Amino acid sequence: MRVLLVGAGGVGGAITKIAARRPFLDHMVVADYDLTRAERAVAALGAAADRFTAVRVDATDQAGVTALLTEHRCDVLLNATDPRFVMPLFEAALAAGTHYLDMAMSLSRPHPERPHQECGVKLGDEQFARGEKWTQSGRLALVGLGVEPGLSDVFARYAADDLFDEIEEIGVRDGANITVDGYDFAPSFSIWTTIEECLNPPVVYESDRGWFTTEPFSEPEVFDFPAGIGPVECVNVEHEEVLLIPRWVKAGRVTFKYGLGNEFIEVLKTLHKLGLDTTAPVTVNGDGGPVRVSPRDVVAACLPDPAGLGDRMRGKTCAGTWVKGTKDGQPREVYLYHVVDNEWSMREYGSQAVVWQTAINPVVALELVATGAWSGSGVLGPEAFAPRPFLDLLTDYGSPWGLREQ
Amino acid sequence: MRVLLVGAGGVGGAITKIAARRPFLDHMVVADYDLTRAERAVAALGAAADRFTAVRVDATDQAGVTALLTEHRCDVLLNATDPRFVMPLFEAALAAGTHYLDMAMSLSRPHPERPHQECGVKLGDEQFARGEKWTQSGRLALVGLGVEPGLSDVFARYAADDLFDEIEEIGVRDGANITVDGYDFAPSFSIWTTIEECLNPPVVYESDRGWFTTEPFSEPEVFDFPAGIGPVECVNVEHEEVLLIPRWVKAGRVTFKYGLGNEFIEVLKTLHKLGLDTTAPVTVNGDGGPVRVSPRDVVAACLPDPAGLGDRMRGKTCAGTWVKGTKDGQPREVYLYHVVDNEWSMREYGSQAVVWQTAINPVVALELVATGAWSGSGVLGPEAFAPRPFLDLLTDYGSPWGLREQ
Repeated sequence: MRVLLVGAGGVGGAITKIAARRPFLDHMVVADYDLTRAERAVAALGAAADRFTAVRVDATDQAGVTALLTEHRCDVLLNATDPRFVMPLFEAALAAGTHYLDMAMSLSRPHPERPHQECGVKLGDEQFARGEKWTQSGRLALVGLGVEPGLSDVFARYAADDLFDEIEEIGVRDGANITVDGYDFAPSFSIWTTIEECLNPPVVYESDRGWFTTEPFSEPEVFDFPAGIGPVECVNVEHEEVLLIPRWVKAGRVTFKYGLGNEFIEVLKTLHKLGLDTTAPVTVNGDGGPVRVSPRDVVAACLPDPAGLGDRMRGKTCAGTWVKGTKDGQPREVYLYHVVDNEWSMREYGSQAVVWQTAINPVVALELVATGAWSGSGVLGPEAFAPRPFLDLLTDYGSPWGLREQ
Repeated sequence: MRVLLVGAGGVGGAITKIAARRPFLDHMVVADYDLTRAERAVAALGAAADRFTAVRVDATDQAGVTALLTEHRCDVLLNATDPRFVMPLFEAALAAGTHYLDMAMSLSRPHPERPHQECGVKLGDEQFARGEKWTQSGRLALVGLGVEPGLSDVFARYAADDLFDEIEEIGVRDGANITVDGYDFAPSFSIWTTIEECLNPPVVYESDRGWFTTEPFSEPEVFDFPAGIGPVECVNVEHEEVLLIPRWVKAGRVTFKYGLGNEFIEVLKTLHKLGLDTTAPVTVNGDGGPVRVSPRDVVAACLPDPAGLGDRMRGKTCAGTWVKGTKDGQPREVYLYHVVDNEWSMREYGSQAVVWQTAINPVVALELVATGAWSGSGVLGPEAFAPRPFLDLLTDYGSPWGLREQ
């Protein structure tokens, strides 16, 4: 399989390191807006670098990306950029006649009048609207295949296929106990993106209501995470699983709750209260007179860059899917999960845990497409496919998943 | 009496409105770095404006300020600027041979090694170091005479003279129930200055230890304020009274606690945790490329200007001095206080309550100096003088004080 990877940031870099160990990969073109970043990612692979080529790309230049796919005879475009670039890359792959895989989905826009009650444009709507074109092309657009969304969706399908007869509720629950040495407060992921995710109206699915939205940080609950992480306060956050799972899995209710913890939630609420979450520029005095800056950029500039914190991070991150329902007439409740210990991922791959956990899943998916274990055409989520091959291959990669009956 | 008022901001403007109603004032020169601001303050006085002249001044230009005092034959310089300008204005008055009055004191600098245990340079140290010069000049430098410090110090002296035989503790306590319509969060005073005050190490006085410092926000207590304000969470904050009161009033312990309330304390702690309180510039992308800005300036720019909020503010502000000790062998505890209702101050003076409450006290003090009721030479705090004339004149101005036995 020949792959065009677009984006050589934290997740993109980890993808190259994971893919370099797998023989299914014939060649990977590593493309980034910053060519030196792509070159650094390839150089870091050492002896394995011969299956990789670094190139420069502008992800917004759809024709340029299509040309790159054709020129390098790629079978698939793997999108490891910011969600802002989903649509041009998705269209570029369609135009080139290749498969496409991403780890998020096209962006949402809140309902203009009732943002905290009704959905406006939902996550993925723009992509699903192009479904017929993809089906006609005979190519596969596999959307939302990171860890969350991604592995969490595979877990949901596995629960529906093998563990339950009827499902009352599916709740994706994400939590960690990662700390960063030497900092009073240092998020292990982009504060800019976290603000974006957490202040968008969270979306919930109920079988009798369809999709609807709530106030930010709604329905707080304390979820007890496995592997020594323990209880963390989780709240509703807008996330792709809520839009994906109900399309292929029957469930009474689907939610996504993020284990931000009390402290982080309070920080986000305070930033919002003071208007510091906004991207609309304010005027302040700079060195040479008045300048206009985005308050959210200033918040990000005051905090350390999470990509460089791997060596100072300690702890584990857990992604998983909690399912409640019945099996053989008996009530059942399970949590299917995947844990990465930062010490392990730094030692084994030189990647911090949060980034590495996202990166492994699209590589597993590419291998399933390469071997033909997963096939199809159209715009499909991870839960559209047989889950067992994915879960078995994940274990084969040395990163097993777990099941907790509760 | 002829007065040079330096600073025509919120407090300076309220001073002109209050002084315009008092016949003791022969003339007031209203000086500001921004001449139009001085002119606006004078024009706002209507028919009373003939006793006022607007001029431009640079408060850091000591020789220029001295020349202005001489040119206009002023008896006193009233400093209504930011505490950064205390020293040049204080020296300018000494050089001109006039009296001097301010509402704060020269700034502190934390102890270089043990900032939260020991004092470094204390508030007012630089001014008291010049005490002999002032005594020799026969002129009075009346320092720290606003509401807090100021009226709070007068209350302390009054308690010592008339209400107690022995004083165990004097605690200045400041609280309010002011809300601002239309804003989720809108401080009624400068967030920039509040950050500065609240993140400096708070200072405490104990008779057997002298002055020492603590961690920010130390010794939280809920103080029940009068006039319907009710209980507010107060914490230790660096403030001039703690440095002034023990110089003239015997007490076992002196503290200042600010009724910031839980919400405000949490906001300040969060800003500090994220590094958003700092004035050291960070680099972010502006409209035309990278620019350097102070995070604290960005925080201030995101919030509404408190000077313009008077019409939207509702509620009361209370300044006062709680005293615990014995009288005639019996334990006694009182709270001496002064409350201003924003609705009243806006209607009567067109000034918001917090600003107006600060402004009335230096005008009362000037009148006491003008009539000879208060006299002396050297660098003196409000508690160096007989308190009763001050308190009676305050009541005569239409803004009575209160005493609560507790």
